[in-house]
Amino acid sequence: MKSLPRSIERLADYFSSLPGIGPKTAYRLVFHLVHSPREHISSFAEAINALTKDIAFCGVCRNIMSSDNTTCSICSDEKRDKSTILVVEDILDLFAFENIGTYDGTYHVLGGSISPVQGIGPDQLSIDLLTKRLKTHTEEIELIIATNPNLEGEATGMYLKKEYSHMSNIKISRLARGLPSGADLEYADFSTLDKALLGRSEY
Amino acid sequence: MKSLPRSIERLADYFSSLPGIGPKTAYRLVFHLVHSPREHISSFAEAINALTKDIAFCGVCRNIMSSDNTTCSICSDEKRDKSTILVVEDILDLFAFENIGTYDGTYHVLGGSISPVQGIGPDQLSIDLLTKRLKTHTEEIELIIATNPNLEGEATGMYLKKEYSHMSNIKISRLARGLPSGADLEYADFSTLDKALLGRSEY
Repeated sequence: MKSLPRSIERLADYFSSLPGIGPKTAYRLVFHLVHSPREHISSFAEAINALTKDIAFCGVCRNIMSSDNTTCSICSDEKRDKSTILVVEDILDLFAFENIGTYDGTYHVLGGSISPVQGIGPDQLSIDLLTKRLKTHTEEIELIIATNPNLEGEATGMYLKKEYSHMSNIKISRLARGLPSGADLEYADFSTLDKALLGRSEY
Repeated sequence: MKSLPRSIERLADYFSSLPGIGPKTAYRLVFHLVHSPREHISSFAEAINALTKDIAFCGVCRNIMSSDNTTCSICSDEKRDKSTILVVEDILDLFAFENIGTYDGTYHVLGGSISPVQGIGPDQLSIDLLTKRLKTHTEEIELIIATNPNLEGEATGMYLKKEYSHMSNIKISRLARGLPSGADLEYADFSTLDKALLGRSEY
């Protein structure tokens, strides 16, 4: 924008680098902050900076954790079932499951999905770590593939299935596909309806 | 969210204190940042902190400016017509006019609008400063009221009109009301259509 102080422009650029925030919203956020008390602005800055110091990733599953720890709260929880690993793309997906509160196994966070278009191959994901993790186990393990039900997520799932299907102690499953709860059948897309029909179960 | 490091929760709280950002979006932003390079995170924090040091408000019109200056770039511009003052609620409104590039007068930023519901009276706005500013002028001045066309904006406009109508050298005008460019007449609300009809001009 015309004749704005450089520090405003600079912060607006940082805000618009965040997902879902366009240049107009970025300026709105900056101007909102400008009118906030100085202490609030400083602590906001501090809270962002804290990410570089206080946050680390679990060496077992790549979940987020406080940098004081060596493994995340889930991996170090004695009560969690270590023979089940739910593989998700993202930490937010992990917390989506944690928030239901019914899953008591462990996780593996891939850190994305295979996407040739975006230049993301298996090497950019934490698949190596998962392979290493599986190789240390000799007992039965269930690997639940919970990648997103889209092109990239499916490709990632297929890749994992191919990668581990030769390991006899690993059972690979994946999330059910069908109608979401509360959906209106009339508005369901072809693929969802098709999967719901194929995956029908006894009533 | 369950079992998240405290610094994640804290930053998510700061993000959700921004306008238009709910708790879910806030977490998305935090997790996006977590995966950014450390230098990016640090400079983002720095850019926010810079607001507390580099930014000040113009002593004449309350526009935003770099704290190195004493008046903003518009007030200190010799070429701007000092006999016209466009009164806006917000700095973003000022930049909306600046971006058109046709207005060559000065501005006055109120810093909000009168809203008894939110406990904002004339004293919370920069009306005192505007009064002082008008009193130093003896020549003709046009005050263009450009508050938002909603309840609070109208109330603020009315207040200003009452406040300054006794000053003989001040001409008070306000922005035209009518159909916005590109609008579909069929979808215009009652008030807009009514104002468009009342304010009709010769063709």
